[in-house]
Amino acid sequence: MKALLKSGVALAAAHAIPLAASANDELLVMEKNAAWYVSPTLDYANTRYSTLTQINKDNVGDLQVAWTFSTGVLRGHEGAPLVIGDTMYVHTPFPNIVYALDLNADGRVIWKYEPKQDPDTIPVMCCDTVNRGVAYGGGKIFLHQADTTVVALDAKTGEVKWSTKNGDPKKGETGTNAPMVVKDKVIIGISGGEFGVRGSVTAYNMETGKQEWRAYSMGPDSDTLLDPQKTTHLGQPVGKDSGTATWEGDQWKIGGGTTWGWYSYDPELDLIYYGSGNPSTWNPVQRPGDNRWSMTIMARDPDDGMAKWLYQMTPHDEWDYDGVNEMILADIPVKGQDRKVLVHFDRNGFGYTMDRATGELLVAEKFDPAVNWATHVDMKTGRPQVVDQYSTHHQGEDVNTTGICPAALGTKDQQPAAFSPQTGLFYVPTNHVCMDYEPFRVSYTAGQPYVGATLSMYPAPGGTHLGNFIAWDAGKGEIVWSLPEPFSVWSGALATAGGVVFYGTLEGYLKAVDADTGAELYRFKTPSGIIGNVMTYTHQGRQYIGVLSGIGGWAGIGLAAGLTEDTAGLGAVGAYKALHNYTQLGGQLTVFALPQ
Amino acid sequence: MKALLKSGVALAAAHAIPLAASANDELLVMEKNAAWYVSPTLDYANTRYSTLTQINKDNVGDLQVAWTFSTGVLRGHEGAPLVIGDTMYVHTPFPNIVYALDLNADGRVIWKYEPKQDPDTIPVMCCDTVNRGVAYGGGKIFLHQADTTVVALDAKTGEVKWSTKNGDPKKGETGTNAPMVVKDKVIIGISGGEFGVRGSVTAYNMETGKQEWRAYSMGPDSDTLLDPQKTTHLGQPVGKDSGTATWEGDQWKIGGGTTWGWYSYDPELDLIYYGSGNPSTWNPVQRPGDNRWSMTIMARDPDDGMAKWLYQMTPHDEWDYDGVNEMILADIPVKGQDRKVLVHFDRNGFGYTMDRATGELLVAEKFDPAVNWATHVDMKTGRPQVVDQYSTHHQGEDVNTTGICPAALGTKDQQPAAFSPQTGLFYVPTNHVCMDYEPFRVSYTAGQPYVGATLSMYPAPGGTHLGNFIAWDAGKGEIVWSLPEPFSVWSGALATAGGVVFYGTLEGYLKAVDADTGAELYRFKTPSGIIGNVMTYTHQGRQYIGVLSGIGGWAGIGLAAGLTEDTAGLGAVGAYKALHNYTQLGGQLTVFALPQ
Repeated sequence: MKALLKSGVALAAAHAIPLAASANDELLVMEKNAAWYVSPTLDYANTRYSTLTQINKDNVGDLQVAWTFSTGVLRGHEGAPLVIGDTMYVHTPFPNIVYALDLNADGRVIWKYEPKQDPDTIPVMCCDTVNRGVAYGGGKIFLHQADTTVVALDAKTGEVKWSTKNGDPKKGETGTNAPMVVKDKVIIGISGGEFGVRGSVTAYNMETGKQEWRAYSMGPDSDTLLDPQKTTHLGQPVGKDSGTATWEGDQWKIGGGTTWGWYSYDPELDLIYYGSGNPSTWNPVQRPGDNRWSMTIMARDPDDGMAKWLYQMTPHDEWDYDGVNEMILADIPVKGQDRKVLVHFDRNGFGYTMDRATGELLVAEKFDPAVNWATHVDMKTGRPQVVDQYSTHHQGEDVNTTGICPAALGTKDQQPAAFSPQTGLFYVPTNHVCMDYEPFRVSYTAGQPYVGATLSMYPAPGGTHLGNFIAWDAGKGEIVWSLPEPFSVWSGALATAGGVVFYGTLEGYLKAVDADTGAELYRFKTPSGIIGNVMTYTHQGRQYIGVLSGIGGWAGIGLAAGLTEDTAGLGAVGAYKALHNYTQLGGQLTVFALPQ
Repeated sequence: MKALLKSGVALAAAHAIPLAASANDELLVMEKNAAWYVSPTLDYANTRYSTLTQINKDNVGDLQVAWTFSTGVLRGHEGAPLVIGDTMYVHTPFPNIVYALDLNADGRVIWKYEPKQDPDTIPVMCCDTVNRGVAYGGGKIFLHQADTTVVALDAKTGEVKWSTKNGDPKKGETGTNAPMVVKDKVIIGISGGEFGVRGSVTAYNMETGKQEWRAYSMGPDSDTLLDPQKTTHLGQPVGKDSGTATWEGDQWKIGGGTTWGWYSYDPELDLIYYGSGNPSTWNPVQRPGDNRWSMTIMARDPDDGMAKWLYQMTPHDEWDYDGVNEMILADIPVKGQDRKVLVHFDRNGFGYTMDRATGELLVAEKFDPAVNWATHVDMKTGRPQVVDQYSTHHQGEDVNTTGICPAALGTKDQQPAAFSPQTGLFYVPTNHVCMDYEPFRVSYTAGQPYVGATLSMYPAPGGTHLGNFIAWDAGKGEIVWSLPEPFSVWSGALATAGGVVFYGTLEGYLKAVDADTGAELYRFKTPSGIIGNVMTYTHQGRQYIGVLSGIGGWAGIGLAAGLTEDTAGLGAVGAYKALHNYTQLGGQLTVFALPQ
């Protein structure tokens, strides 16, 4: 790898891999180049595991800041920059600027793309003006703007190659998630579960921007791209129009199930994986039934979008436990057997291990002991066993159900976990927050909030801390170690072959811990709270660690949007009020390296 | 010093110096504590020289970033934080937030003061929404807001002790300069020379906020606080109403001479020093005469504001060469004699050395060989010998006079120089920019721009670089060494007893150079362009270097305000267009230290 990096010629050659009709060969080669950071998820498997070892557990304590870059934008900075060759691609929250920075010149700006977007998009973004990053494929950088415009930029010049609209902000549809490039397609999700948006995933042709397929989370089979016979749920065919059958009337048309999380791809099985979000409205009484396929893990064929299997984790959600969190693809032993699994840490507080080929449920265990809304998951039916005391439907409309754990933002939200094949452990940034939840009747108006619940959040019982950073054995479904954090860990983790795991905190610390023990090896106070994902790359033989600072996101919405009412920000503001004592709005990249 | 710092008790005792009726005893003691950074100018003498030596020319190359803080505000960050004891006070541009940060807790926010200000103040700020910092005195932090409100905050709690209005933004009067506390008074200037504001300096009682005196730059003697007999100009009494006698009609009432630079104080002579800005309008044809006392160095009694002596550097300005730059008080040899001098690097490109007791002119030499508007200063009359070719009055209204050096933003603007008694040299951040200047007739309307000239700026002939960082021998009036910089050096310098000089660049580099030779010893790319002033302090025995990043100010106004026309931003935008290739808007504090 280093030899490659030291030779400009070799690099150029690597960059110039002849592009076949499909881009995934290119990306599969590129993601094996650990010097680069090609995908917002590091790799198709979403491991966020780097094989780089220059920075390791013996020397990470010597880390220092190598260079920094202000993005020129404040508010929540989720996601991570990409590095391809000598260029770094940095994205920002609304207005979704993309910078190409020259790594040979201390981050000099090669090009800047700043879309013109209607600021009226901001009020329909439920949980800050975040964007989770850009994707690369076929010499292009793909950006999914807040206003749902999908744009392809020439990676060398920033020139717009094509642009298309994925949705309509006037209906509450917005763009926050990072695209994923698979084969010749750009896969895009949608946000807006709090506005009655019916979620979908759409594939666009990478070269032309033409829509290839769209799979809705609910609706008739022609919309959901389900085969009544071939598509299975825990091994059983889903049957005809399963995406409308568990809904009352036309509620599915404004049924939520948005798709704003991280996407995975298994090239061998040729399946993409993602999860769908909450059913709309948040008032469960207004939408009896299982509300399929909200809250569902989906495995689909990237060529035509047809679903191979589904698994609904939280039928008839009563707590806003969106199922959008990432699926990490790994080969690990489960109950003594080597299995090809996906591991998913759900908002509902259960860590799921599934056979990723068949959708068989292997493990479903709480990854925070505070979780109380369900006693356990029935491994046969896959259904969580809900506790009446914490059932907001059972308690009823206009009743304040108290002490529910986790809170709506889940035991984990979008902040992605990492997996180290070296330790066999998953490293999970978590929330340790509970809530009161009072559903109320709400009527639908396009583009208006369609929430129907008042929430307030607070630390889980027995302490004041709002988060933990944990190591998880997904074969056993057990916490191996857990580091309490004063606030939720809203940053994505990075594991490395150097035996180190990195994550950021809402106060702004970048932390490095021992992958085996969790012992803290390094911390540094970056300019603002970290909700971005830690990334790594090498340049001219030197390994770097990078992370975006910029407080915001759902947990930081009080600071980001200047909200002070405890129940504002969908109930999150109260719990995180003390944050302003630690950090202020920002928007900076901080890049670390060892002393030379 | 270190012993003091190691003892919390000793620190507390030092902090608890009994306050006499006057605060200057307290400040004189405090500014000798090199561990602290008590004043925005480091000391009353404006030397910006620290006696700290832990970081020195042998080890400064090992410097690394210790911690960072995002201010939550974008645009130009001028000035520097203060450090008193374990607390750092950080200010921001509009809306002029002040943070008290706990140095014992990685910059945790102890208190935050955020004034509510009318955003309509922003358009009457000629050269970005900058603020040059807060001052300390008598347990209070003094802030001069953009809307000219002067506010006294309890240093421990941030509680407002008193508040008063120094001017009226509706007339174009704004606040940008840092207050100076002298004895029991807070001394405040005013900005707005581009709006026909008549400049003044005002002293407020430190404890009550009551106005004690106000000295206008022009007007009758009762306004200017001049004594016709006792106040001298180059040794001669100024005579009666000298502040109206050189004006046509009532033009002096909208005559400019604003007072937005750095202030100095000599406790022995009991004199304060500052300079006045351009006469209004920028069209010289509209205001015949010398336009006294615009463009003037003033020495005044802090108790009653009466002027002891004056010196007008640029009579009848035709180029906007404001005389507001700082006076550095030093005791140096001049022509073989030890003299108590003030040294002033004027916008007009001349470096002046004067006897600070008498106002005798000792040296006046160009500190950039590009300066061409005058051949030299007549040492007897003190008048610059103007070259007709570059006289915008001589060329006349509606004529574009080309190739004038320096440009309106001067060979140096607000960016303060430093003086090292160790080397005897002055370290000066400079501009190397020339201009075309076309005056035109303009009529006065309160609160509207009253400029009357169209400008465009570009690099001085013979190169493409826009700045130099120079070492200057003020006894001889000679450049000792000069470091070319791609852009103007708009950051304030810091010299230390470690033999190092620090400054920042518009691309965002903090640089450390050898005080003797100018050899670069260290550079680091901070998040955004630096127009702040480098400061230093020690905490728990460790020396730190701090600097604010945040591109803006006059040189950075194109980026800061999103202007793209070459002649916008009073002509500055064109020259600095390439800046966006290097840096973006920011607002961060970066604090450096040696590895532990």
